[in-house]
Amino acid sequence: MNDYTPTREDRFSFGLWTVGWEGVDVFGGAVRPRLDPATAVHKLAELGAYGITFHDNDVIPFGASAAERDAALKPFRAALDETGLQVPMVTTNLFSHPVFRDGGFTNNDRDVRRFAIRKAADQIDLGAELGAKVFVAWGGREGAESGAAKDIRAALDRYKEAFDLLGQYILDRGYDLRVAIEPKPNEPRGDILLPTIGHAIAFINELEHPELVGLNPEVGHEEMASMNYAHGIAQALWHGKLFHIDLNGQTGPRYDQDFRFGAGNARGAFWTVDVIESGGYDGPRHFDFKPPRTEDMDGVWASAAGCMRNYLILREKTAAFRADPEVQEALAAARLDQLATPTAAPGETVDSLRADEFDPEEAAQRGMAFERLDQLALDYLYGVR
Amino acid sequence: MNDYTPTREDRFSFGLWTVGWEGVDVFGGAVRPRLDPATAVHKLAELGAYGITFHDNDVIPFGASAAERDAALKPFRAALDETGLQVPMVTTNLFSHPVFRDGGFTNNDRDVRRFAIRKAADQIDLGAELGAKVFVAWGGREGAESGAAKDIRAALDRYKEAFDLLGQYILDRGYDLRVAIEPKPNEPRGDILLPTIGHAIAFINELEHPELVGLNPEVGHEEMASMNYAHGIAQALWHGKLFHIDLNGQTGPRYDQDFRFGAGNARGAFWTVDVIESGGYDGPRHFDFKPPRTEDMDGVWASAAGCMRNYLILREKTAAFRADPEVQEALAAARLDQLATPTAAPGETVDSLRADEFDPEEAAQRGMAFERLDQLALDYLYGVR
Amino acid sequence: MNDYTPTREDRFSFGLWTVGWEGVDVFGGAVRPRLDPATAVHKLAELGAYGITFHDNDVIPFGASAAERDAALKPFRAALDETGLQVPMVTTNLFSHPVFRDGGFTNNDRDVRRFAIRKAADQIDLGAELGAKVFVAWGGREGAESGAAKDIRAALDRYKEAFDLLGQYILDRGYDLRVAIEPKPNEPRGDILLPTIGHAIAFINELEHPELVGLNPEVGHEEMASMNYAHGIAQALWHGKLFHIDLNGQTGPRYDQDFRFGAGNARGAFWTVDVIESGGYDGPRHFDFKPPRTEDMDGVWASAAGCMRNYLILREKTAAFRADPEVQEALAAARLDQLATPTAAPGETVDSLRADEFDPEEAAQRGMAFERLDQLALDYLYGVR
Amino acid sequence: MNDYTPTREDRFSFGLWTVGWEGVDVFGGAVRPRLDPATAVHKLAELGAYGITFHDNDVIPFGASAAERDAALKPFRAALDETGLQVPMVTTNLFSHPVFRDGGFTNNDRDVRRFAIRKAADQIDLGAELGAKVFVAWGGREGAESGAAKDIRAALDRYKEAFDLLGQYILDRGYDLRVAIEPKPNEPRGDILLPTIGHAIAFINELEHPELVGLNPEVGHEEMASMNYAHGIAQALWHGKLFHIDLNGQTGPRYDQDFRFGAGNARGAFWTVDVIESGGYDGPRHFDFKPPRTEDMDGVWASAAGCMRNYLILREKTAAFRADPEVQEALAAARLDQLATPTAAPGETVDSLRADEFDPEEAAQRGMAFERLDQLALDYLYGVR
Repeated sequence: MNDYTPTREDRFSFGLWTVGWEGVDVFGGAVRPRLDPATAVHKLAELGAYGITFHDNDVIPFGASAAERDAALKPFRAALDETGLQVPMVTTNLFSHPVFRDGGFTNNDRDVRRFAIRKAADQIDLGAELGAKVFVAWGGREGAESGAAKDIRAALDRYKEAFDLLGQYILDRGYDLRVAIEPKPNEPRGDILLPTIGHAIAFINELEHPELVGLNPEVGHEEMASMNYAHGIAQALWHGKLFHIDLNGQTGPRYDQDFRFGAGNARGAFWTVDVIESGGYDGPRHFDFKPPRTEDMDGVWASAAGCMRNYLILREKTAAFRADPEVQEALAAARLDQLATPTAAPGETVDSLRADEFDPEEAAQRGMAFERLDQLALDYLYGVR
Repeated sequence: MNDYTPTREDRFSFGLWTVGWEGVDVFGGAVRPRLDPATAVHKLAELGAYGITFHDNDVIPFGASAAERDAALKPFRAALDETGLQVPMVTTNLFSHPVFRDGGFTNNDRDVRRFAIRKAADQIDLGAELGAKVFVAWGGREGAESGAAKDIRAALDRYKEAFDLLGQYILDRGYDLRVAIEPKPNEPRGDILLPTIGHAIAFINELEHPELVGLNPEVGHEEMASMNYAHGIAQALWHGKLFHIDLNGQTGPRYDQDFRFGAGNARGAFWTVDVIESGGYDGPRHFDFKPPRTEDMDGVWASAAGCMRNYLILREKTAAFRADPEVQEALAAARLDQLATPTAAPGETVDSLRADEFDPEEAAQRGMAFERLDQLALDYLYGVR
Repeated sequence: MNDYTPTREDRFSFGLWTVGWEGVDVFGGAVRPRLDPATAVHKLAELGAYGITFHDNDVIPFGASAAERDAALKPFRAALDETGLQVPMVTTNLFSHPVFRDGGFTNNDRDVRRFAIRKAADQIDLGAELGAKVFVAWGGREGAESGAAKDIRAALDRYKEAFDLLGQYILDRGYDLRVAIEPKPNEPRGDILLPTIGHAIAFINELEHPELVGLNPEVGHEEMASMNYAHGIAQALWHGKLFHIDLNGQTGPRYDQDFRFGAGNARGAFWTVDVIESGGYDGPRHFDFKPPRTEDMDGVWASAAGCMRNYLILREKTAAFRADPEVQEALAAARLDQLATPTAAPGETVDSLRADEFDPEEAAQRGMAFERLDQLALDYLYGVR
Repeated sequence: MNDYTPTREDRFSFGLWTVGWEGVDVFGGAVRPRLDPATAVHKLAELGAYGITFHDNDVIPFGASAAERDAALKPFRAALDETGLQVPMVTTNLFSHPVFRDGGFTNNDRDVRRFAIRKAADQIDLGAELGAKVFVAWGGREGAESGAAKDIRAALDRYKEAFDLLGQYILDRGYDLRVAIEPKPNEPRGDILLPTIGHAIAFINELEHPELVGLNPEVGHEEMASMNYAHGIAQALWHGKLFHIDLNGQTGPRYDQDFRFGAGNARGAFWTVDVIESGGYDGPRHFDFKPPRTEDMDGVWASAAGCMRNYLILREKTAAFRADPEVQEALAAARLDQLATPTAAPGETVDSLRADEFDPEEAAQRGMAFERLDQLALDYLYGVR
């Protein structure tokens, strides 16, 4: 049994806002002091992460002057240099300041939309400078609490416009960086635009440069909508749109819990890692969680370490599951090989199918043998095989 | 105040399986006798509907011989002729017979998949013959209860293959008919493929003939996933993909309740009708509900009449809301006019936006005036304005 | 049609923290300035409310000295005197300060529990002094995110101990005040103790002075757990435990939305008012909502006014529904009169019932006529009857 | 590592309706043949179960004559004798026959209510005869889809009446048998009476013989309402009301999935077993699941075996977790020992607490160390410690 100690080769990254969350929520104030970004860099490096990600305002105060900005960035950059930690992704905060009370790119106020786009572009500049390959766009305040407040089709027009402008900007600047939309169904808005993986991929297909834009799906956000996260990222991979990933934990449709990865829906986490590891995703394993408000800073680091540990545990399990000859036999018994085979032979049409001799009553007798297969998976999840 | 009596111009249609539901569920058997299809046609015509829709096996027994098929169809066709009721949509049942225990188009068993496709094609033939313009595909059993049982990407390949074959078939036959996918997140499978409007639109973009395929979103199915249905169909309209619609009622994430339209989420129903009526949808207003098991046949017809009545009530309300000068003034106060205006002027780029003079602290003071606007809407919903 | 202008006879009350919410949430800071308590009193009085309620720290800063406390209370009391607004309920904040990160009465830390109890007692003193008849206990942080962190049975022992101590304190002081527990299933904790109306009533039965303790159920909290709120308060009334009520709006299991009353589940709101008005509840109609973060102070007051307006609209509707002869006839057709009749005649036992002649097959034919009855209700909800 | 083979000492029992479920649901017919009760008895005995439970109509056809009843029971009894399998619990079916379309004990129709009570009494007789110690009452159809259809307080009166009559009957007959109510929030009714563990315990306190009545909580039913099941049964144990238990699997608020135990919320299952094994529950470990419709009879038995296997796996894990010295140290660090200590010393009152010297700002610095503790638990769940 290995000790599940992460290394940089595991490509774990963390949002600065995760370990840096002070604990402010609707019902209470900060329980932890501000975490200095440079300290976060050092500590994450020490724990075995390879990357750190951030919103502009996690490092640079909103409205900072150029001098303040540089002053804020300097120790952060120094820490990156000292540790070798990378910045594989950046994102912009279009939800905290009151000017974004109705969102950024789809705010009803045109001036705010314009401001939001250039704020995003500024952070794209910084990301490109720091070597980030992905710019995440979480439109947390793009939505509504009531029906007339948002004309959805107009809002989607504006949303498209923002991504088209930013896409052109990335092309014009020649940045080696793609955009990843992060869907969420609700909270903090009553309903949010592009609520699931599916809605976001559909949307991307309408953009001027769809190839530049993909997804950053978060476990908890999808599970808040009763979605199967492993299914969701598998569909995103099928579309070639899994650009980045946000791993954490959730317990079904309720508030956004942001538990550490592995500590929500454990069975779902197993299949999530299975899809990530076997499905061709090659980006960072990024954690977007919130160390519970009960914890002090020791607890914060324990929670962060737990994210990586659980990923490594599940990675080992899913690999062993897939390699097990009895599992392979059970997969065949469940006819997964047939699912991988095209339904029609080359050249066949509907009329060809009509020539089949097929007795549905006879075929209806065959069970699918899924329960046996799934028990093998659970045996791996529970570590008893 | 009008009496909300439907006419054929209102284009209301019903699934034969709705008023014909005998009440079988997981916990109990039939409470109502089989409803003769011809009787259903007559009764729906009498109530004011203009159309009836059906699964193949609602009229034709599974496995019927050609003679049995003709015998079953004859009185049904006669009733259509007698009443003038149309068949604007048909669909096929790939979920009731045990051969479909693992689905149809994505069943792990290749033989079953081939059978499912030709069963669908047969019903497309019948639909075209009866003048249907839409073929609905609800993949109720396309899904899984456990992770290894379904390779999602392979299943999506198979799903695409089925729609490509059927699309080509429709083109080859020259049918004037399009396909509408009906998403659902779960039930009767643990998780279903293409769980929401978004996932289905994304999927359609990968088909050989995407223009042939659109959506038939159901109120309850989306609300089971905590989706805002009005937002969902607005996005479908934005993509040009709202081919058909399934109206009913639901109370949030729980079992598929299929209440009559207007009798679930009333506030949601108001905005649903608002989008349907103002958003350019011109298909049937189709009800896919289940008269509760408590009802006898009188109750069934009362429930069906209620669907239409509630639609007409809400249609009147939403039209009045949109026409009200105070509402229009409130919409402007909420800056909906600005949302309808492009964010960038023609020719502007991100760099143009950077020239804006904008004081976010000042802009942050402005409220959105959404509560006043929504109270006007509620006043209409509640009928007090 | 009346104009739905509230008067003091309507007994509407508001939490100071509702109109005073500055908009801080997990994702963003304040969007509105602090609302001076005295200003809130004047404004609510002007809008037609009869009462205001508050947490200790809504008026008195946490950790205030006696002098600071008196200084904070003075203008508040003056405003009450000037307006005649009452304080029918008070409550204490055991969730905002970081010392309550693991709750108050059930905090694992014994010192914190002791502090929480005396903080509650201090506010009970103030409530009694101001004439409050109800002390609400919302244990928002009493819960856990993980299994071992809270021994539930030990925590319930401690919870009981707190209510027993406070109950004895109320008796000892001779206060004319009762305690009302406010259940909530989750948020801000992963799972909260006493998650529903039912759990809280069950708990109360184990207290030393159960007669002193009842419930303050909130619409949104119950609906977050998929509960039917009208059913819940009906059960609370059945137990004699509806001591106070928190009215607001919610859209199913998701984050705690706190919409204004009438602007969430509209159909549920109709039945809620029906139960309140017909069920013998005689306390304040108290609103515990949050004016959305999109609003400025004008929007806040519009939202508050909307709560009362919607209640009055629904009160008129439900009264008219109950008085309608056709409804009464429909209720009889649905056999509500039989439900009101004891199943057994006086003196009958199970053996008496065995003498019945009863043909279940015949009885099974009778429909319940619920759809017709509910359509009459919807006609009232929609204001078309 | 043991092989997790169940023995009778493990006290596993199964509902006959679980392995006997033919697969009928709202969307499809039977996929498996009727399972002969005697065959079920033999097979369950062989798999290692110690008990079988049943609804009257699982064995005896509805409306059977005395002779038919005896004929149906004879081979079942013989199988029990041959195998030594026990019948620790029985229950009655008041939901499948159309006469129960509006429920049994709370049906609006008084005649149906009377019939339901004597049907239950008949099954109590049979249960007592077979040595059952628990009679489960699941009121699956006791509820409503619409507000006026059920006067909740009248319905609770009728519900109480039924339990009072049956309680008196049990006392009169001198049966050594108690009643266990099984709560469920919804499905097949829109909302069901006594929707959670809490509501049922509250209700029981109003009965004539509350000591005779307790609970049979089901994992899935509670999780459908977003309840934490382990918390729920811990509260039931705290009230002395955990009379029986229904173990299965579910994935949050959606339709009633009835997965095999361990195959839904795995993290929840861990804590469930922890509470069962450490909390003083000494009844059967009863499985109420549905082998998925995908399975043939081999799959059914694999699924049943999986229930027991997963329980044994988790029992081993939770015992090891509790015995681990590092866990014990972590529990102390999380101050669980303080939670077990009364908040007030003997004789202390609120006024005593006021003498405490306590600095909340200082105390607020201490983290709860829950994340470290929970990671130890996850290490056990995942089998890596």
